[in-house]
Amino acid sequence: MRTFKLILAYDGTNYAGWQFQPDRPTVQGTLEAVLATIIGSPVRVLASGRTDAGVHALGQVVGFQAETDLPPGELQRALNARLPQDIAVSNLTEAHEGFHPTTHAVRKRYRYVIYDARVRNVFARHYSWHFRQGRLDHEAMERAAAALLGTHDFSSFESRGAERQTSVRTISRISVRRCRAGEGGWQLGLGTDGEQGDDWVLIEIESDGFLYNMVRAIVGTLAEVGRGTRPESFVADALRACDRRRAGPNAPPHGLVLLRVDYE
Amino acid sequence: MRTFKLILAYDGTNYAGWQFQPDRPTVQGTLEAVLATIIGSPVRVLASGRTDAGVHALGQVVGFQAETDLPPGELQRALNARLPQDIAVSNLTEAHEGFHPTTHAVRKRYRYVIYDARVRNVFARHYSWHFRQGRLDHEAMERAAAALLGTHDFSSFESRGAERQTSVRTISRISVRRCRAGEGGWQLGLGTDGEQGDDWVLIEIESDGFLYNMVRAIVGTLAEVGRGTRPESFVADALRACDRRRAGPNAPPHGLVLLRVDYE
Repeated sequence: MRTFKLILAYDGTNYAGWQFQPDRPTVQGTLEAVLATIIGSPVRVLASGRTDAGVHALGQVVGFQAETDLPPGELQRALNARLPQDIAVSNLTEAHEGFHPTTHAVRKRYRYVIYDARVRNVFARHYSWHFRQGRLDHEAMERAAAALLGTHDFSSFESRGAERQTSVRTISRISVRRCRAGEGGWQLGLGTDGEQGDDWVLIEIESDGFLYNMVRAIVGTLAEVGRGTRPESFVADALRACDRRRAGPNAPPHGLVLLRVDYE
Repeated sequence: MRTFKLILAYDGTNYAGWQFQPDRPTVQGTLEAVLATIIGSPVRVLASGRTDAGVHALGQVVGFQAETDLPPGELQRALNARLPQDIAVSNLTEAHEGFHPTTHAVRKRYRYVIYDARVRNVFARHYSWHFRQGRLDHEAMERAAAALLGTHDFSSFESRGAERQTSVRTISRISVRRCRAGEGGWQLGLGTDGEQGDDWVLIEIESDGFLYNMVRAIVGTLAEVGRGTRPESFVADALRACDRRRAGPNAPPHGLVLLRVDYE
């Protein structure tokens, strides 16, 4: 048996999330089915964590064990040739025996994308939250977000339903930036009437772990500040309360992307 | 009767092109159906030109006449509320009577996006040509493209089947650039393993008009130069030949976006 670690990118739009479900398309189910055809026997894969329906990944980390003589590069090519176009293996290496993508992860980074121009961007409709209520005050959001840095009980930003031993996590980085699409030059950069506009608010959060729906709850809370319906202190107050009802609503899933997972 | 001019963005993925077809989803058919429900009577719309199935637009210009008391801003809001999420009106103004979006257009700009990293980008799969044969020499492409600047008979870059009086057009600008996705910061920018890579080649062409499939034929020809199977002189030679068989194949439709159309 060999152990492999792969980095997976997926567009979550057409999946009922990462985790296998018998009667719905999932990323895990799709990957396991393709692996089974390549390896010739059933393969169970593990991820760094689940992602919900509609949530995307650029750097999901997946581990699995398989009996195969294929070199990693061959296995990667075989996977990319057989996986649907909305899933891709960007890296595949052999890992040490006992590698566990969930428990060995030491840090994760998520990005949340908000688009706050008046008219929707047709190309980003699956990859950003179109915030229609007006331009967000991203500077107020950034100041308010600073309260979340460090080690806290984040139960105000946790949806029910997940198993976990503690709701204490350590956020090592949180940023709120307003951007225009750079030279990076995809059509996304162009807003109304063909002009470039800085209508994108990017929120990035790095933590040693995330509670269920934690990023979406933080973003929904920051948006309340950004739209001016709540003061900047709303975020710190919500954090202290340790009560989900004191924070804002969850932002929708499709603005969220798992950027990367780090291991020791 | 009032005359309106609107700027339309659409993701062409799910449409059989701009032009109305009785039994397939088209952008024109969708827009006309929505306009009819708002205006209360059938409305015929005209565009600056057709786009093929899978081709996108950020700045398609559309004109129509209607009897309505709605101010332009109201009409725009009503359209965006009723149109599907992959079509959006980014601007709507009243135009002078007799405004004709096709014949009055004096200049158009298209962009073609190529992604030439080894592993596909799942988020750009509908909006770029994934060129799998290796990294393109974009500098050779740019030098070769210069031969197309100016007024020429472009019949080597024209597919059959369109009506037109002449195949002479004037290209006022053509650029080939390699980019990384900038701060513009959408997930698109991130390549393999979460790092940013300059795996995007953007080709922009501005002309007083385009023949049928002209951009796709030019891009397909430039790609032959960029991959090294043809010398830089291939483009100039193809142009001089006035023979479609002397140029490269058409690049696929989904990398193409109509950026803007200018009027006097």
